[in-house]
Order: sequence, then structure tokens, then C-alpha cells
Amino acid sequence: MTEHRLLLKRDDLIPTRIAGSVLAPAGGPDASAGFHRWLAELGRRSFTRAERIPLDALTGWHTDTATGDLRHDSGKFFTVEGLDIHMPEGPVTRWSQPIINQPEIGILGILVKEIDGVLHCLMQAKAEPGNCNGLQLSPTVQATRSNYTGVHLGKPVPYLEYFQDAVGHHILADVRQSEQGSWFQHKRNRNMVVEVTGDVELLDGFRWLTLGEIHRLFRIDNVVTMDARTVLSCLPFAAPGLIELYPPRIDRFRLALIRSCSQDEGSMYSPNDILSWITDSRTRRDVYTRRIPLNAVDSWHRSKEKISHERGLYFDVIGLDVRASGREVARWTQPAIMPHGVGVVALLVRVIGGVLHVLVHARAEPGFVDAVELAPTVQCIPDNFDPLPEAARPRFLDYVLRADPGQIRFDTELSEEGGRFYHARNRYLIIETDLDADAPDFRWMTLHQLVDLLRHSHYLNVQARSLVACLHSLSVG
Amino acid sequence: MTEHRLLLKRDDLIPTRIAGSVLAPAGGPDASAGFHRWLAELGRRSFTRAERIPLDALTGWHTDTATGDLRHDSGKFFTVEGLDIHMPEGPVTRWSQPIINQPEIGILGILVKEIDGVLHCLMQAKAEPGNCNGLQLSPTVQATRSNYTGVHLGKPVPYLEYFQDAVGHHILADVRQSEQGSWFQHKRNRNMVVEVTGDVELLDGFRWLTLGEIHRLFRIDNVVTMDARTVLSCLPFAAPGLIELYPPRIDRFRLALIRSCSQDEGSMYSPNDILSWITDSRTRRDVYTRRIPLNAVDSWHRSKEKISHERGLYFDVIGLDVRASGREVARWTQPAIMPHGVGVVALLVRVIGGVLHVLVHARAEPGFVDAVELAPTVQCIPDNFDPLPEAARPRFLDYVLRADPGQIRFDTELSEEGGRFYHARNRYLIIETDLDADAPDFRWMTLHQLVDLLRHSHYLNVQARSLVACLHSLSVG
Repeated sequence: MTEHRLLLKRDDLIPTRIAGSVLAPAGGPDASAGFHRWLAELGRRSFTRAERIPLDALTGWHTDTATGDLRHDSGKFFTVEGLDIHMPEGPVTRWSQPIINQPEIGILGILVKEIDGVLHCLMQAKAEPGNCNGLQLSPTVQATRSNYTGVHLGKPVPYLEYFQDAVGHHILADVRQSEQGSWFQHKRNRNMVVEVTGDVELLDGFRWLTLGEIHRLFRIDNVVTMDARTVLSCLPFAAPGLIELYPPRIDRFRLALIRSCSQDEGSMYSPNDILSWITDSRTRRDVYTRRIPLNAVDSWHRSKEKISHERGLYFDVIGLDVRASGREVARWTQPAIMPHGVGVVALLVRVIGGVLHVLVHARAEPGFVDAVELAPTVQCIPDNFDPLPEAARPRFLDYVLRADPGQIRFDTELSEEGGRFYHARNRYLIIETDLDADAPDFRWMTLHQLVDLLRHSHYLNVQARSLVACLHSLSVG
Repeated sequence: MTEHRLLLKRDDLIPTRIAGSVLAPAGGPDASAGFHRWLAELGRRSFTRAERIPLDALTGWHTDTATGDLRHDSGKFFTVEGLDIHMPEGPVTRWSQPIINQPEIGILGILVKEIDGVLHCLMQAKAEPGNCNGLQLSPTVQATRSNYTGVHLGKPVPYLEYFQDAVGHHILADVRQSEQGSWFQHKRNRNMVVEVTGDVELLDGFRWLTLGEIHRLFRIDNVVTMDARTVLSCLPFAAPGLIELYPPRIDRFRLALIRSCSQDEGSMYSPNDILSWITDSRTRRDVYTRRIPLNAVDSWHRSKEKISHERGLYFDVIGLDVRASGREVARWTQPAIMPHGVGVVALLVRVIGGVLHVLVHARAEPGFVDAVELAPTVQCIPDNFDPLPEAARPRFLDYVLRADPGQIRFDTELSEEGGRFYHARNRYLIIETDLDADAPDFRWMTLHQLVDLLRHSHYLNVQARSLVACLHSLSVG
């Protein structure tokens, strides 16, 4: 019998080391300018050009004659199908729509390493075909299963080996999380943060950044990608005692934000209350979905060009012809979802008893694995609600749109995933309020409660995870 | 703006109060005899008689002419359908089978109340049609959604109101958990423990018991039901410092068991390691299932009497004619699953560094919502493996069957749910070992790590939850 040494709370130091990376000095006045020069220089050397083409002009893809579904000839990647949705509790109780079915679980991974005593993240400048502005800051690795099983027949994905065989490395986060439940059927990716101690070769297009440096980039429109945001949100950054690491004089809002990272500071609801509320929401809410042929979707029409809603709302399914340098494959065509209008994704936050609380919404989306996930206070494309009755208008949307500039703590336009969505952009907002806004489908939660849930799958939707990363970015001055 | 008072760790006292109920004096030498007199007396006054009848003689049920599926005429309750399963990693890679589809989420609830300073559970003596021995000890409430929405057209379920509207009560546990993934397609129930402070009327057939009293009943064959076991397993009974509540001289095994309830005592793997291992198992393991017509299931045959496998293995689908007193409905017929043979459900446990660790198995079952859940070290009906190749024989099964009596810490035959299964019994075993048994699909975990996971859905399967309750019962002398 081997003698085993037991681990004593080995994970406990992680939040302190994360805070150290958030607070690390910026590396001279030129650090930010250096980053942007690097990004601009890369942008000149590489290119990804996506041209809209008719759906009928896609190559390697075909329309199933019986169902109208759009499929890749290999049967891999993803398909565009129909989904029939019944949500008896409304506001809209029944509809059907096109939806992307991509059952494979990909990997979104950030490699971290201590450099001069400070955790750094290995980030990649990557141009996805759907990006509105070329290169954005992405995780170390974004790999679909097709990527790493060779369906692409392309180049191997760099650094993937650290995530495919993480044994022996220090795992900071490893959890499967959902993606857009309005556009994806049961899509989820594995979000990983892995720490290495040995040497790591720095390849062209990659850069080591502290969390503080990444956080400052959150203030610039369309730089930090959705994939980077979701992985960053899964970092276990909450713990008691972090306040001692921060400078003694910080403003009221940041103080409340950092106190919100500690369960010792209290919360409006106990963890049991929150878990029970989620269980109740998931049990009570009926969401019935049924895959249907894409050509049986009601109120949507397919032309040679695209698939679109008869009233020009929601989104179109379009075709893209992509040419890229530095990718696994140099040229390909694919379908993509192009939303109509810029969305609003907003979190109301409130300092309660000196501790920041955020107002989350138990929201049903047709593509969720488990009916309901926690979403931001407001999440919609406002234009879509113009033709609907007043009762269907999302709660707090008008409050958010009319917020006083003094309440607005965060306001950046950020992009959704550029591999499947074309120019999908949302205005992400964090707005301080003193509203007593509790309602059955809404709850005030602290940041440490959200971080605890983020260790498990399918509690927070992708927009809420983005806003957790945005909130965390507000802890730097 | 209302001033809110924040909760400071209100849940923290629960484990201490649970330990108090475990350790409460037994209430005199007559306490146990009193319980058995009560159960016997109830057994004389009430009855549930289930007679086997041919499937063709079911009333209120019909066989769908196209698919062969067995359905209730109302479309409610459950259906028996076919499932086609593909698990490329084996040991058996492809098969089809009958399966019960019951998509409704029911409530399994235990009401608890402090009596003379000690938490008591309101337990019910209940005879399910499939029980092998009449009355067994059940939760306060077992209600399918059909029960509480009136499909049964029967009597209301007593005490249900405490669980349907738990606001204002103190919630100790509230989580949806899976049930037998070999016999149920995506079945799950809401497991709730709710504490009340006001008066509660004690109805005939119900009894207040301390956890210590319930734990002692775990030593008797077929008394504590599966539904009671799963709800009890969801109690948050682990916390640091519990050892101080126990008598100073307890034996080495119990000391290691109680230390296993505290994260301060250490563990072989960190929480992050465990979560990452689960994520990896769920991502790597491919489980493809597809509903098929019951009459298209391969190697199974339907007669007037029953549906059975051509080799007489696994289980039969049979008909039951049930007459019952004291139930919502006095007489009904239904299909049920009758397994062939008594199963073995065993947990290997090992004292590592003075802390008890249990060997859990990341197991795929076709009916799981999420492909893989944590299962006991061994879980099978041994007879089913006689015709299969040696390689298909479950790991550790022979070790368990040949264990020395001195290693056996728990050995009780317990019943599975008697509402859908007929005489489904398993021998539950907890066996101490000094094996170095780590393997890719197995991990040594502490009890507090399991209790942490049990606050969330779909981590532990129903057999593993039963064994967590059995393990907890070993903490009383």
C-alpha cells in the first residue's frame, strides 16, 4: 500500500494570485501603446477576408432535399436546421426558427504562467470571418473537435496539447458552458484555464498579458472576444480577504465590488436560497422544443441568397466566402447567422449593505440544455420588440436605455463569436441603481455567488459570463 | 430605497444541527421496538396488493399500433418506449432496449422540524406496488406532477403545500437528481428538505424520527426506500469541526469517516482536480441515444404477458393490477419493470492519511441527461454478465464478491423505487480496502467533496446517492 500525502486546500491561493495579476503595475507608460502597435502590425501582415455570398453558392455544403437543412458534405462541423418552440408562459408562447446544431464540444483554453511572480495569460490575436474589425483578442486555443480530429485537414492547432492532456499541469478552471441559446441548439464548449511552469515557446500572433492589462482592453469596443470573455469569467477570482491586497483608498464602488468577492461580507440571499430558486425556476418553467425540417419553419423564407424572417426581424442565415492567412485552412465557405441590429446586454448592480449585488434573470432560451440559465438583467436586440405588444417588452429595458450617465459603470460594444455569427455586436452595460427590483424571475446575487456557480456547467449563460468578466475588469483603476 | 440586512452565512449551522440529530439519544430502549410495532400495526390496517397480469390485460393503457409503445390513455404518467444506444468505448458498444420515459419532474420531500432542540424528519410508511415486503419508510412527500395537477383524480397529497410553496420556510436542500439511467430516459426528481417552525399536524401513517433513528433502520433489509435515501443524501451534513460534537473515543473507521466530512482534513485530489476529471469524462465519452419504436427494439420480444429479452436477461416489462387502501386512487393497473436477479451496489472505501476516501466511478448510462455521472465502485446485476466476455465483467466486482467479512462495513439489501419497478432489490455494500485502485474512470474522493457536488444536479447517480446515505448512517454507533 502506497502512502499518500493529502492535499490541504491547494486551490485556496488561486484567487490571491489572480488578484496579483489584476493589480500588477502596467509595465510602463508604453505598455498599452505597445499592445496596440503589436495588434496593428499583425493586422497588416495577416488577413481574413469574408465576403457575403448567396447560400446557393456555398461549396462543400448542400441543402438536404427532403428537409431543407444546410449540411456540410462531410457531415461534420454544424448544420442549420429548424426548431419548433413552445413556451406556455410566454410572452411569445409558440414559434419556430432556424437554429445551428453543433453537437461537438470544443475547447476554449487560456494558458497561464507565472512570469516575474505575476500570472500572465497567453492570448492570441485572431481574425474570425464574422468579426466586424479584423483581429480581436482571443484565448490561447479555440478548437472544435473537428479541429483536433483532423476533419479540417488543416494545420494543427498550436498549444492544444496543454489542454488535451492537462494531467501534470495545474488546472485553474475546467467546465463546460453553454453558448447563445437563441441561435445554437445545445451548443457548449469546454472552458479551461491551465497553468504551466515550464518554458513555453511564444509563437507569432500570441502575447503574454497580465489580467490587469486584459481588463484595461475591456474598455475598448470590439477587442476582447466572446471566447476570451467566457474563459476569463470561469477563473475562480472570488475569496475572502482580497480587500487587503488592494490599495487602502479605493472608491465606494470598487470597495463594494471587492467586498462582493467574499462570502464573509454577507449576501441578500443564502447559497441555499439561490440554489432553490434556480431549481424552482427550472422545474416550473416548461420549455418544449422539437427539431423540425428547416423548410417547415413558419414565417421564415429561403431565397437563393439567404434565409430570413418575413418581417425582416431577428437574423438572416447568410453565406460567407472566407480567405485567411495563418489559419488551419486558407479558404472555405460557410453559412453564418447575421443578426439585425445591435443588442443590449445590461446588468443592474446595487450596493446593498456595502456589498455589490447584481440583478440576474432566470431566463429560458430554446437551445439551453436545461431550459433556464441565469442571464443579465436585460438581454435583447431592442429592434425586435417594436412590432410586439408592450407586455412582451423586456423588463428593465427602458430603464437601462434611459439610465443617467452617472449610473453607467461600464459601456462597451463587444462582439459575439465570429466563427458562426457575422457582425454580431452587443452594447454591454453595467448600471448602478437603487431600484428595489426583486421579482420572481430576478434575484440580487453577489459576485462570489456567481463565481461559485461558474465552477459548474450551465448556470450562467454566455452573456452573463461576459458581464462577470466585465465586472471583474472594473476592479482595476 | 429599502435598507436590506445581509445574511451572514446563515446556512453554516445546518451541518451542526444535522450532526445533533444523528447523535441524539435513542429515546429509551423501547424506541426501536416502538417503531417496528407502529410499522406492523399500520401494515395490518392498510394494504397494497399488486398482482401480476398480462400486459394485454392492462386497463387505461394501450399499445400504440404503429410503434408498439405502451402509453396511458390520458397521455400522462409514463410511456414504455424503445431506445437505441451507441457507446463506441464499450464494453458493449451497441444495443437497444425498452426504457421508461417519464419527462415530468416530481417532488421527493422530507419535512424537518426541531422538537426538543433536535431536528426530526417526518417520514411516511408507504406501500408501493413493487415493494417486496409491504410498507417501507418513505419521505414525507412523493408526488409526480400528475399527482399535484389532478390527473390522478384522486385525493390530494398530504403536506405537499410545504414543498410547492417553500417561500418563508427554511430550505436545507432543493436539487433535481437523476434516477436509474438504465431503466429511465432522462428521469429526474426534485429532492427537497424543508424545515418548518410552526405546528404540523401528524397524520396517520407518518412519524417524526431523528436522523440517528433513521440511520439505525439502514441496517435492516428493505426498510428505508430509495426515495428516502436519495433525499437524505442531499442533506448538507459535511462541515469542518464536526468531530468536536462526537464522543471522544470513537473507533478508527468512524474517526476517518467524520474527518472525511471536513475539507480542513485534506483530500487526495483538490476540488478543481475532481471537477476537471468530471468535465473530461463527460467530454471524452461519447454516448449516442435515439428513441425508437418499442416494436423495433432488437433481441426483445413482446408476448401477451410481457416484454422480455431473448436470453431471459436484464429485466421484463410486466403488468400489475394494484389494489390499495389509503392511496390517492384505490385501484389501478400499470406496466412495471421486473429485473432478473438481485444487484450488487458497492463502494470501496479506504482510510488515506486518516481521512476516509471512497472510490467513485465515472459511469455512462443511456438515460442520463449528461452522459456520465458518478456511480458506486461496482453497480450491476452479476447474472447479466455470465454470457458476456470476461473483458465486459465490471471492474472490482470479483474483489467485492470475495471480500473478507472483516472488510465489510455495511451490507444491507435495499429496494429500488416500488412505483415503477417490481421487486427490484440490490445488495448495498461498503467495503474497506487498502487497494491502490486509481484508474482513469475511478477517483478517490472524500465525503465532503461528494456532499459539495450533491448541492448541484446530475453529479451523483441514484445508487451513489444511496451509498452516501448509507455511509452517513455509519457515523452512529
